[in-house]
Amino acid sequence: MSIKQKNPVSVNDVFWNRYIDLVKDKVIPYQWEALNDRVEGAAPSHAIKNFKIAAGDAEGEFHGFVFQDSDVAKWIEAVGYALEERPDQQLEETCDELIQLVSRAQQPDGYLNTYYTIKEPGKRWTNLRDNHELYVGGHFIEAAVAYYEATGKRKLLDVMCRFVDYVDTVFGPEPGKLRGYDGHQEIELALLKLFRVTKEERYLRLCQFFIDTRGEQPHFFNQEAENRGEKSHRWFHDSYSYSQSHLPVREQKEAAGHAVRAVYMYTAMADLAKELNDQSLVKTCETLWTNVTQRQLYITAGIGSAEFGEAFSFDYDLPNDLAYTETCASIGLVFWAQKMLELTPNGQYADIIERALYNGTISGIQLDGTKFFYVNPLEVWPKAANHRHDYKHVKSERQPWFGCACCPPNIARLIASVGKYVYSGKDNIGFVHLYIGSETVLQLGEKKVEIKQTSDFPWNGDVTFDVSLESSSSFTLAFRIPGWAHSYELWINGKEAGSQLDNGYAYVTRNWESGDQVKLSIPMQVEILQAHPELRVNAGKVALQRGPVVYCLEEEDNGSNLPDLAIQTDQPIEASFDETLLQGVMVLEGKAVRSEVAEGLESQLYMVEGSVTRKETSFQAVPYYAWANRKTGEMAVWIRKGE
Amino acid sequence: MSIKQKNPVSVNDVFWNRYIDLVKDKVIPYQWEALNDRVEGAAPSHAIKNFKIAAGDAEGEFHGFVFQDSDVAKWIEAVGYALEERPDQQLEETCDELIQLVSRAQQPDGYLNTYYTIKEPGKRWTNLRDNHELYVGGHFIEAAVAYYEATGKRKLLDVMCRFVDYVDTVFGPEPGKLRGYDGHQEIELALLKLFRVTKEERYLRLCQFFIDTRGEQPHFFNQEAENRGEKSHRWFHDSYSYSQSHLPVREQKEAAGHAVRAVYMYTAMADLAKELNDQSLVKTCETLWTNVTQRQLYITAGIGSAEFGEAFSFDYDLPNDLAYTETCASIGLVFWAQKMLELTPNGQYADIIERALYNGTISGIQLDGTKFFYVNPLEVWPKAANHRHDYKHVKSERQPWFGCACCPPNIARLIASVGKYVYSGKDNIGFVHLYIGSETVLQLGEKKVEIKQTSDFPWNGDVTFDVSLESSSSFTLAFRIPGWAHSYELWINGKEAGSQLDNGYAYVTRNWESGDQVKLSIPMQVEILQAHPELRVNAGKVALQRGPVVYCLEEEDNGSNLPDLAIQTDQPIEASFDETLLQGVMVLEGKAVRSEVAEGLESQLYMVEGSVTRKETSFQAVPYYAWANRKTGEMAVWIRKGE
Repeated sequence: MSIKQKNPVSVNDVFWNRYIDLVKDKVIPYQWEALNDRVEGAAPSHAIKNFKIAAGDAEGEFHGFVFQDSDVAKWIEAVGYALEERPDQQLEETCDELIQLVSRAQQPDGYLNTYYTIKEPGKRWTNLRDNHELYVGGHFIEAAVAYYEATGKRKLLDVMCRFVDYVDTVFGPEPGKLRGYDGHQEIELALLKLFRVTKEERYLRLCQFFIDTRGEQPHFFNQEAENRGEKSHRWFHDSYSYSQSHLPVREQKEAAGHAVRAVYMYTAMADLAKELNDQSLVKTCETLWTNVTQRQLYITAGIGSAEFGEAFSFDYDLPNDLAYTETCASIGLVFWAQKMLELTPNGQYADIIERALYNGTISGIQLDGTKFFYVNPLEVWPKAANHRHDYKHVKSERQPWFGCACCPPNIARLIASVGKYVYSGKDNIGFVHLYIGSETVLQLGEKKVEIKQTSDFPWNGDVTFDVSLESSSSFTLAFRIPGWAHSYELWINGKEAGSQLDNGYAYVTRNWESGDQVKLSIPMQVEILQAHPELRVNAGKVALQRGPVVYCLEEEDNGSNLPDLAIQTDQPIEASFDETLLQGVMVLEGKAVRSEVAEGLESQLYMVEGSVTRKETSFQAVPYYAWANRKTGEMAVWIRKGE
Repeated sequence: MSIKQKNPVSVNDVFWNRYIDLVKDKVIPYQWEALNDRVEGAAPSHAIKNFKIAAGDAEGEFHGFVFQDSDVAKWIEAVGYALEERPDQQLEETCDELIQLVSRAQQPDGYLNTYYTIKEPGKRWTNLRDNHELYVGGHFIEAAVAYYEATGKRKLLDVMCRFVDYVDTVFGPEPGKLRGYDGHQEIELALLKLFRVTKEERYLRLCQFFIDTRGEQPHFFNQEAENRGEKSHRWFHDSYSYSQSHLPVREQKEAAGHAVRAVYMYTAMADLAKELNDQSLVKTCETLWTNVTQRQLYITAGIGSAEFGEAFSFDYDLPNDLAYTETCASIGLVFWAQKMLELTPNGQYADIIERALYNGTISGIQLDGTKFFYVNPLEVWPKAANHRHDYKHVKSERQPWFGCACCPPNIARLIASVGKYVYSGKDNIGFVHLYIGSETVLQLGEKKVEIKQTSDFPWNGDVTFDVSLESSSSFTLAFRIPGWAHSYELWINGKEAGSQLDNGYAYVTRNWESGDQVKLSIPMQVEILQAHPELRVNAGKVALQRGPVVYCLEEEDNGSNLPDLAIQTDQPIEASFDETLLQGVMVLEGKAVRSEVAEGLESQLYMVEGSVTRKETSFQAVPYYAWANRKTGEMAVWIRKGE
């Protein structure tokens, strides 16, 4: 099957408008200043300066990471999505100028990378393992496609086609070409986007080459290391699982290595599988999906539980406090889930998109848009984060956009493009995957179906769809019934309507008239969730979720020492909306117990059972995504269950 | 007060004989082979070779750590203690020869250190911060004193007096001398031992100088770094707390930094305080003792919860799984506790000695004496220890005596000298601190009191003392009533006898006759212990202890996934001795619950409450010290309490 993408979707949603405006009004302008080294107190990015030097507009040395260029690319991509949602002539002009600069930095043969152009000319393609040349190119391809789709302007698209045409002369199975691939997957998924826009078959084949070649023996990274004269192949525990090149991709059964690299690759694999109808690749993607979602996924849709290598760990190894759970990894999981959903319309994929969107992705951005988390742990003890070396990656407060700035522009582009995850159309079926207020026109075969969705998600499960048609017509609308839902009701034009529930979607097939109104009601209740017993760190604990939103306890509301607090799950937990709190959130409140040490024993570290008694108290939980927006303090998603 | 040490004590105890024999028959011979590079498959120690080279007996280069010499010293010290317990002419001859070698390696001016003698002559005393010259000297002083006390032979003692006489010309408050101290405290406590044996006041004053000078500003380590031309003073987080030189010692209120360095220093401080009757130092020691025992102590008497810097952390930061809890640190805690006990006869000090001896020290040695733990965690998941970088210091199996070999000889010398912790005499009072089968002669004023103790500790709390006297005499015997005891009974010559309980000791004053027999009965029951609520990792958990022995659960007895298992503390827990298990241990058995996932939900990571139900099971706990002596598997001291 081929689900059509790129239906123009305009988001108008109480929850998401705020985020989209934030990206448009704060994040994009702030990042522009940062890219131009104009943020006071921040270490200079030098990213734009590098392009000016490479373009011959300025003198100087390259500064920053080898992948510094990608910050520019992600900014352009975010601008593209933002312009699609919220046109802005000035912003578009600024971006056009930047694209001119980028095009001048392109070398005559199509090569584009300011690090090698400025710092190591002549050393291109000598260290794919570490140096991100194709990764950067991939981000520029994504930017080019996004900007083209938003504005119709081909300038950057042409630049990147020239780049890829050149790359195609360097890499490939033919003798004399490099039989290699990038250490950080990214260009693979980008090539498929470029292929869809340009219809250029070579781009599809180049992607296929990168995917098929990865992990072959003799290992490309060893060969290039030898060519560089490196004596040792030791690298990240002697294994290439860090870059998912430890095995040919079709032999990989468990998610391993750097989580962002992994999900970017799985995204490309799923998309390529669809394009080529490659069933072995479909199967591999499904195996990896099962491993991730049944063994290596946090309840927040965080992935990558190990700081070392920012990596997946092993089955059920999901520590709450040591978690890495990079914002970018959850974002990549959204990309992958969408491609899985395009392969098979199964609600489990959209469930993960929803879980990531309302939890582990937007937790990465401060409510005011000025600070960011790279690491999104599920439990934080600020004192440990500040003092313990093993927790050095865990921050109790979001950080300004400095240094290795992968996550901030990534969350910006995700938010700006959230509309792209709401609908899809396939043949005679229009799918609604997410309940986000928006308007779209679905192309179902010959028909155009206009849908206006009004939603109070994530706080309320009532959603309305107003359908407009050129003429009445028979087709199917399929509404996702989330995995967390216990029931749902559907009314059409005020009358309860039947539907067929299949793999998480309620299918409604009828002769639709323009003006038809669908009301979907999915009751949201407070869910008390337990983890699989093998997920040992959560033994005896519960997590709270309501609708798609995972909750947490913060010190601000519950005092310090959250591990001591235990929720009484046999008492009612009430949900109420507090519009003054955290820019408006549903709050959960209930009964809990805390410990009290018998008088005179307070100084004892260890004491006989019974010396510690319980006292009744209450708790208040707030959405996880909104944590760390008040005073610095403890936070915990998994809470002990009171005896 | 001045409690007299060095009562000759001969241990004859069911529990400890095995360990002492192990040290004498296995560990000391094995270590001798290791020091001589004769252990197949082991990286050569080179420690003896270094001495041969320094003595001019052999050619070659120095190999090993800068403190490699200290392995030789600790071996001699252990031999000294062992010879005191179990004379052995051949061993003594071997050791005499070694001491001859050491003496030949001493430089004409008294200097002794093979690293500087061989590798960096002329660079002595240029990097006290890192290079352990005085630390090594301290271990040789301890060895010299132990060997002298065991054999009466002065050879090494004379060598070390010459060394210290020389050191005394290099360090001191006088102009032209170095106003400095070693980065690893050790010589301080050793100098006090040397002072007691030699009565040489200068050794006491040198110790005082090292203690008083430590942490002064301008900082000695900065000055020497400048002299070396080091540009940066950055070192272990810009702080000298690693070596407890961040503040003058009297201003230190919380235990901080490298745990072994810390407790070696606190030992010296307490001992010096007693010698000088320095009340400010007494107060500091008591403050630090309170901090360690009420805030930073594991239930096993492990200390040092942070791997980074092998260090103390902050109050109540005692993770069970990430713990460092070095064997040497618990050994040093024993040294310190003994000195505190000499300052004040309070049972809390002997309680810690006992807790360390039966738990966190001997856990460091395999029951067969061939392998050792440096790190003694309270919870181990082998898969995490093998795969997670943040757990890389945690081993699921003891390691052979290779590489940085501080712990194996340290546990050897502790075991060989365990008799030294059993008794002390002061004026007219004879103290019994530990219940270890042994014979001793206490010198109480003019009187000699011979005591023969028969004990079944740690499995049974009945102890017998046979008193022999030259003539009947009035004095006091004080028997420690352990902190874990709920009651005790005392009989003298078959009749229940009165005693006065004061600060953990039962004082019995009477006119003693030769042949008097004291029977002390301290009932041991299974204690279910809880941690202070601020010790957050143990929330909802209990630990089991019986007598002085802390228990743990092992996978071998209880299956995998120990965090899922919850003890039913309202059900009986039975203790029974299993002489076939782990060379004879008391085993605890009781009821527990485990989780069961509802059918069909096994693949879910997260599920609504009620999907996981409990099923009844049983548990078996074994002494913590004996863990990891069977198949590699999980272990946990703190276990969830069943609902």
